Amino acid sequence: MSKLTDVPKRILIGRALRSDRLGETLLPKRIALPVFASDPLSSVAYAPGEVLLVLSIAGVSAYQYSPWIALAVVVLMFTVVASYRQNVHAYPSGGGDYEVANTNLGPKAGLTVASALLVDYVLTVAVSISSGVENLGSAVHFVIEHKVLSATVMILLLTLMNLRGVKESGKLFAIPTYVFVAAVFVMIGWGAWKGIVLGETLTAPTADLEIKPEQQGLAGFAMVFLLLRAFSSGCAALTGVEAISNGVPAFRKPKSKNAASTLAYMGGLAVTMFCGIIGLAMASDVRMAENPAEDLLANGVPVGPEYIQNPVISQVAEAVFGDGSFLFILLAAATALVLFLAANTAYNGFPLLGSILAQDRYLPRQLHTRGDRLAFSNGIVLLAGAAILLVWVYDADSTKLIQLYIVGVFVSFTLSQIGMVRHWNRHLKTEREVAARRRMHRSRAINAFGAFFTGMVLVIVLATKFTHGAWVALLGMLIFYGTMSAIRKHYDRVSAEIAAAEGPSDDSVRPSRVHSIVLVSKVHKPTLRALAFAKLTRSDTLEALSISVDPAETKALREEWDRRGINVPLKILDSPYREITRPVVEYVKGLRSENPRDAVSVYIPEYVVGRWYEHLLHNQSALRLKGRLLFTPGVMVTSVPYQLESSELAKRRAKKRQDWNAPGAVRRGPVDTPRPPRPPKEPTPKG
Amino acid sequence: MSKLTDVPKRILIGRALRSDRLGETLLPKRIALPVFASDPLSSVAYAPGEVLLVLSIAGVSAYQYSPWIALAVVVLMFTVVASYRQNVHAYPSGGGDYEVANTNLGPKAGLTVASALLVDYVLTVAVSISSGVENLGSAVHFVIEHKVLSATVMILLLTLMNLRGVKESGKLFAIPTYVFVAAVFVMIGWGAWKGIVLGETLTAPTADLEIKPEQQGLAGFAMVFLLLRAFSSGCAALTGVEAISNGVPAFRKPKSKNAASTLAYMGGLAVTMFCGIIGLAMASDVRMAENPAEDLLANGVPVGPEYIQNPVISQVAEAVFGDGSFLFILLAAATALVLFLAANTAYNGFPLLGSILAQDRYLPRQLHTRGDRLAFSNGIVLLAGAAILLVWVYDADSTKLIQLYIVGVFVSFTLSQIGMVRHWNRHLKTEREVAARRRMHRSRAINAFGAFFTGMVLVIVLATKFTHGAWVALLGMLIFYGTMSAIRKHYDRVSAEIAAAEGPSDDSVRPSRVHSIVLVSKVHKPTLRALAFAKLTRSDTLEALSISVDPAETKALREEWDRRGINVPLKILDSPYREITRPVVEYVKGLRSENPRDAVSVYIPEYVVGRWYEHLLHNQSALRLKGRLLFTPGVMVTSVPYQLESSELAKRRAKKRQDWNAPGAVRRGPVDTPRPPRPPKEPTPKG
Repeated sequence: MSKLTDVPKRILIGRALRSDRLGETLLPKRIALPVFASDPLSSVAYAPGEVLLVLSIAGVSAYQYSPWIALAVVVLMFTVVASYRQNVHAYPSGGGDYEVANTNLGPKAGLTVASALLVDYVLTVAVSISSGVENLGSAVHFVIEHKVLSATVMILLLTLMNLRGVKESGKLFAIPTYVFVAAVFVMIGWGAWKGIVLGETLTAPTADLEIKPEQQGLAGFAMVFLLLRAFSSGCAALTGVEAISNGVPAFRKPKSKNAASTLAYMGGLAVTMFCGIIGLAMASDVRMAENPAEDLLANGVPVGPEYIQNPVISQVAEAVFGDGSFLFILLAAATALVLFLAANTAYNGFPLLGSILAQDRYLPRQLHTRGDRLAFSNGIVLLAGAAILLVWVYDADSTKLIQLYIVGVFVSFTLSQIGMVRHWNRHLKTEREVAARRRMHRSRAINAFGAFFTGMVLVIVLATKFTHGAWVALLGMLIFYGTMSAIRKHYDRVSAEIAAAEGPSDDSVRPSRVHSIVLVSKVHKPTLRALAFAKLTRSDTLEALSISVDPAETKALREEWDRRGINVPLKILDSPYREITRPVVEYVKGLRSENPRDAVSVYIPEYVVGRWYEHLLHNQSALRLKGRLLFTPGVMVTSVPYQLESSELAKRRAKKRQDWNAPGAVRRGPVDTPRPPRPPKEPTPKG
Repeated sequence: MSKLTDVPKRILIGRALRSDRLGETLLPKRIALPVFASDPLSSVAYAPGEVLLVLSIAGVSAYQYSPWIALAVVVLMFTVVASYRQNVHAYPSGGGDYEVANTNLGPKAGLTVASALLVDYVLTVAVSISSGVENLGSAVHFVIEHKVLSATVMILLLTLMNLRGVKESGKLFAIPTYVFVAAVFVMIGWGAWKGIVLGETLTAPTADLEIKPEQQGLAGFAMVFLLLRAFSSGCAALTGVEAISNGVPAFRKPKSKNAASTLAYMGGLAVTMFCGIIGLAMASDVRMAENPAEDLLANGVPVGPEYIQNPVISQVAEAVFGDGSFLFILLAAATALVLFLAANTAYNGFPLLGSILAQDRYLPRQLHTRGDRLAFSNGIVLLAGAAILLVWVYDADSTKLIQLYIVGVFVSFTLSQIGMVRHWNRHLKTEREVAARRRMHRSRAINAFGAFFTGMVLVIVLATKFTHGAWVALLGMLIFYGTMSAIRKHYDRVSAEIAAAEGPSDDSVRPSRVHSIVLVSKVHKPTLRALAFAKLTRSDTLEALSISVDPAETKALREEWDRRGINVPLKILDSPYREITRPVVEYVKGLRSENPRDAVSVYIPEYVVGRWYEHLLHNQSALRLKGRLLFTPGVMVTSVPYQLESSELAKRRAKKRQDWNAPGAVRRGPVDTPRPPRPPKEPTPKG
């Protein structure tokens, strides 16, 4: 266990784990829950408020519907959880929705899910950070007054942390998350006690405000539409549920079973907190409006633009604990912290998904490498950039950002549930054993209902939020989808181009002999080493080649060559224009055209240096020459390195980089359980 | 000869010469003069004005001294020309002042001259363009109203031209320069005729303005100081004289003699025009002030900030030809054009000097390559950037910029003249033949006087202009000097580090056997080609190495390997973290430590692609791997290229780049006369 005193440090740096020790860190449920659930749990910090906000459009009277909306969210939550319990059993490999869709519905669906998730990650960062800032703001005013700035700083901080490759340790998540959950439950319990048992009346700070309804006396379709919109805002509570299904490999054995029950706990906690907060909000007469400046009236007059509308959770906390009380501050802090952790999860999910996509060649191949710093940095920077952009465009207003949210989530929900139905159908074809068949039928029923329900929600979300910003999310998905399929196309084209024909070793160029050429400028150690190596790998002919750019230098070279009695013929080409590349390339081409069936091997002595500016001072001509030579078929280029003293520096840097730890390794689980091959359309082993 | 109709096109594009046809283009005197003298000749467009400007500080009465100052400038000009006539005889190789100083006074002096010249080139661009804009402005008003903008645009235009590698053809220079010279002489002649013979009075547009002296009744030292300042401003007329001594190789035979006489013509023309313009200015009562807004009074009241002070040359032209007359416009246009050409000469001189400095390892080695586009572009961009900076800082005001000018010129004048004295001393030690000795004595006397005079001017310039901006020029020189000597130090350190000890081929690593490893990811054409090549260069052991990042892929690979019966052992390393680099590097290190006296040769199949973004999609891991491998001694890395179809594109691009022509080739002369080796402190062959 960790000393509590470490926590602050841990929160900033995380505990450094050598990645090869990752195998030891399998997560028990009590740790896995906070690690994976910080995102869905934290969403209760804003979801309830969004419901009230939307309802307020029809005036305070509409608040009466909020319990029904809460109920709908609860049902949805149970459905989704039940469905994903099937997923984790069927796909224990951690591929998540992408894998499910890809395997059962084919690459297009898979790619759609992937795009949706990528957009979703960006929004998770934007929404969580903004909401976190708002919650912090209810306690610390400076933050709320410089909202965009604070949000940006937070994002940059997270980015830095993750770029440096700090590793979340399970406990880093456990402590704030549990504190948050506990605080919320205490609040609900105490509130209930006060209200019901002691019969006190709770009064939120906004209780005495009136709401000027934007639409008077809504009814019929309009009202239904409004309720649906409120509902789809409430659905924000479900974001991040799929996180667990991505993380199965990280669980202790029996992995799937533990993951499934963790899902259940998470769902239970989330809905309880969600309903509790709605309930308290109703009891304490919280008043929220979509644009408070005009629509909130303090004894008849609008409160005006400088009025700051605190999140519902902090308002009820104030009603229950009293403003500025210890518990109030604690809850605000815990809420903010959990929201920042939720944002951090995106930093882990994004590159992880990226590496899976790279494995399927939708992204540059090198992103595939796990814990490749470069690869991850790219992903992280992209994520942060997009999130910051959103924060600036929507001035870090969680309410506005939530309009974009959820679309992605429910796209992946729906597709993965449909995929699961397909999955069971396929297995039912083969499965004969009765008990198993019954289980499958049950699972299929659950997933089918899940698919239907989530699909319906998706439609609702699109219908009610498209103009409010959902279109932005869709656009983002489109962009990701386009780019990734283009990359895949490119890779496919290339691999078709380079596919080897049948029959043993049929290389188009089957050279018979090889001429070796060692490039020489002066007689110094690098040259001598290159010569030694060239001699070592025996070729049919070997000669040294030097370009004469300065007659004097050339003369000196020739003399030293003879003096040292180097037993390799030295050929000198004149280059009146002091060019290096052209003469060499033309000489090599000449050799090739004389005897086309031979190969030419060019040895270039290369300086290995340590400082960036030294690269400008060395090897430039060599590099360019190499670049040009590679265009000529039947030529290979050998770099014979000579390590200058300064290269030690770079060596050390490289070492450091090697010990770097990729973020999110904990939730990816140990690596000795690699993902099984997933040829699309092919049944996968049952979990 | 060129049709006149081509001129506009030619002025923009120049005539494209394939550089290998350069040998044909030796310059006859009548072409060489304009090519090299556009800079010094054009300076008469601003030098006379500067003299009057400074004098005006002491009130219009001080104008009476201007003839004396003109005289001083004439004497100086003759001295410098006479001295440089010695240079071109002694150093026909075109090294110019840098070579002279470097050879006779040692590297430090040489580097100082080089820095001075580099700064000078930057200022040539800034001053000439600004002055050109001012002259154009006297005819086209828009230009003068957007001075900085127009100047910047002009610089960018020149930069573009030179980056595209257009080649000045001699005639491109000849026509405008001769037009300019002719026009000026016509003006002087006609003015004299009108004034002296017809007895008309010439009146400049500013004739009826009064000058409010900034210092009343200057006398004694103050007056002397002022006159010296005026004189050193007049010295701007001498800038660019050294150009010819850089260009000797470009002359027709007898090169030195022709160069010398061209120098003489240039000097003669320059001083005549200079004096003529001063004379006309006096006759037509031109009035100029350092800050016209306050110090120029139109019937008692200051003319105010919106008054635009036209250059002296355009004022006298107006007095002689009449405003808006054809000849007036022609002269204005020719003046501007010549000034732009003068700026263009810096674009040729800068990279040329750069390549000479690179040869002496003061600059990155690759700049040495003649006509290497990359190298030149760097130089050109640097030059343009610095010039634009100056133009913005000094809002394209030639008067302000001239304060920075000249310092550099006279630093190199002085040092090269001192160098020449040393040169003759050395030769006098050896020379016995009487006639020759007499010639040498005469030359030495001339150079000695030159050194003394130019040195004195340098002191005057520094004394009178330091605070006015000369310090900026000195700072620039310091920066160049520091950078270049640092680079030289680095190269020296490295070449000491890699110097081969005596005795035949003493490479520290003398490997006895070589193990070859072919990196394999899949069995496709690139791999097969790599295998074929690896087999071809016979090594002691050969094995294929594959990193298993995905068990399924690995299994498939293994199967195909066996199926195809590839007769090379396939070794597979597990990489749980899906890393490529680390396992390979560690495996290679392992081989090395098992048998340290052996070398390891790693074959990497490399994709050759054509589009920039394809580089992001291929070879990334290969490149990084190579980078890491090169740090391990005793390892060589062979890239076996496989040309994808798209590589054709890049091939074509490279071809295009190859046919690129370096700017300034004309003045560098044909390349079959390479510069002789110049070991410092060593006597050079007499011209």
